[in-house]
Amino acid sequence: MATLLHIDSSALTESSVSREVTAAFRAEWETQHPEGTVIYRDLANDPLPHLSADAIVSGMAPAEAHTPEQAAAAALRTKLADELEQADAILIGTPMYNFTIPSTLKAWLDHVIIMGRTAAPEVGGSVAGKPTTVVVARGGGYGAGTPRESFEFVSTYLDKVLTGLLGLDVEFIIPELTLARVVPEMAELIDVADASKAAAHERAVAKAKTLAARFAA
Amino acid sequence: MATLLHIDSSALTESSVSREVTAAFRAEWETQHPEGTVIYRDLANDPLPHLSADAIVSGMAPAEAHTPEQAAAAALRTKLADELEQADAILIGTPMYNFTIPSTLKAWLDHVIIMGRTAAPEVGGSVAGKPTTVVVARGGGYGAGTPRESFEFVSTYLDKVLTGLLGLDVEFIIPELTLARVVPEMAELIDVADASKAAAHERAVAKAKTLAARFAA
Repeated sequence: MATLLHIDSSALTESSVSREVTAAFRAEWETQHPEGTVIYRDLANDPLPHLSADAIVSGMAPAEAHTPEQAAAAALRTKLADELEQADAILIGTPMYNFTIPSTLKAWLDHVIIMGRTAAPEVGGSVAGKPTTVVVARGGGYGAGTPRESFEFVSTYLDKVLTGLLGLDVEFIIPELTLARVVPEMAELIDVADASKAAAHERAVAKAKTLAARFAA
Repeated sequence: MATLLHIDSSALTESSVSREVTAAFRAEWETQHPEGTVIYRDLANDPLPHLSADAIVSGMAPAEAHTPEQAAAAALRTKLADELEQADAILIGTPMYNFTIPSTLKAWLDHVIIMGRTAAPEVGGSVAGKPTTVVVARGGGYGAGTPRESFEFVSTYLDKVLTGLLGLDVEFIIPELTLARVVPEMAELIDVADASKAAAHERAVAKAKTLAARFAA
């Protein structure tokens, strides 16, 4: 029985394209694994605190020396790292806000990246190699060769941090131009945006099916 | 009488290099402007909430239609934008956490970047052209030509968002290798790290002096 860790981070619930695509992935995964476990973290509706001094300092001192605040901060980091370690597959949904990930997702990363445990670049950390699907919903067009390519700090950043620090095996699914149905000036891009979203759904379902088969044994 | 908006975001207070360098800038600025105003935001010790759906939705509806939650979220965004608009000069201190800015600073950006007010890339927003000094403290070496250059998402990101969306006039001051005195394996880099910090202090004081003279009239 496989475990999926599913993380959403869009502040919006109703109209979020990243949530829609992660939901499609998860639905297929659950169809294939009706008795599996899904650990769900909705970082917008159940937000994590920012990484605090207590959370940092607790990692440098033995547990018996912790203040109550440090112990609580350490317990949260441990819980999040446990979830990541329990997962056979990881699914992350993120929007692009002001060219990069929302602060909610950065807070999760800052808690869950623990040097010597989940992150151990030289020797391989506790989560190295886990298959990770990242759904990045971008309001405009930021693909290779476009004028806005150098403003893309979502997939470029997540690739470096998830691969470089956690050693995860990352694939990106990127529905683009999600603002086409919202911003009047982008109306002519609606067809392209719809096609991008449809392709993302298809890719998400296919990826979920492939991964599910891998863990079916 | 000039106004400085001073923002710190390092989770650590005692041993933070970014806070030490922004403090040097601020001290020189205050010496030059004993009767000026400093608006201070300590994003670690007085953290902002993550950008919520209420904060986003409030920007799309008239004030009289806001729920109490939306009104509160909108009021916070207005307060932060007011502070940015009141500033003659802006000073931001940030560490690098997991290759980019802390979630505390991202939360501030997500609140303060308001399309049609502070951000209006085509026509120039309400804060365009303001002189902005950003102190980036990096634990390792991520400069141009180094093996870790492509893992640097602090200055590369902040340059795009502060310049591209807010139109600020940005200069970076970057003390590097701040972990040399903490990580035993980096001990041989202590001299280089100390020189980098000393240069950052010197640059911060010089920049504060130059800016202060500009606003002395």
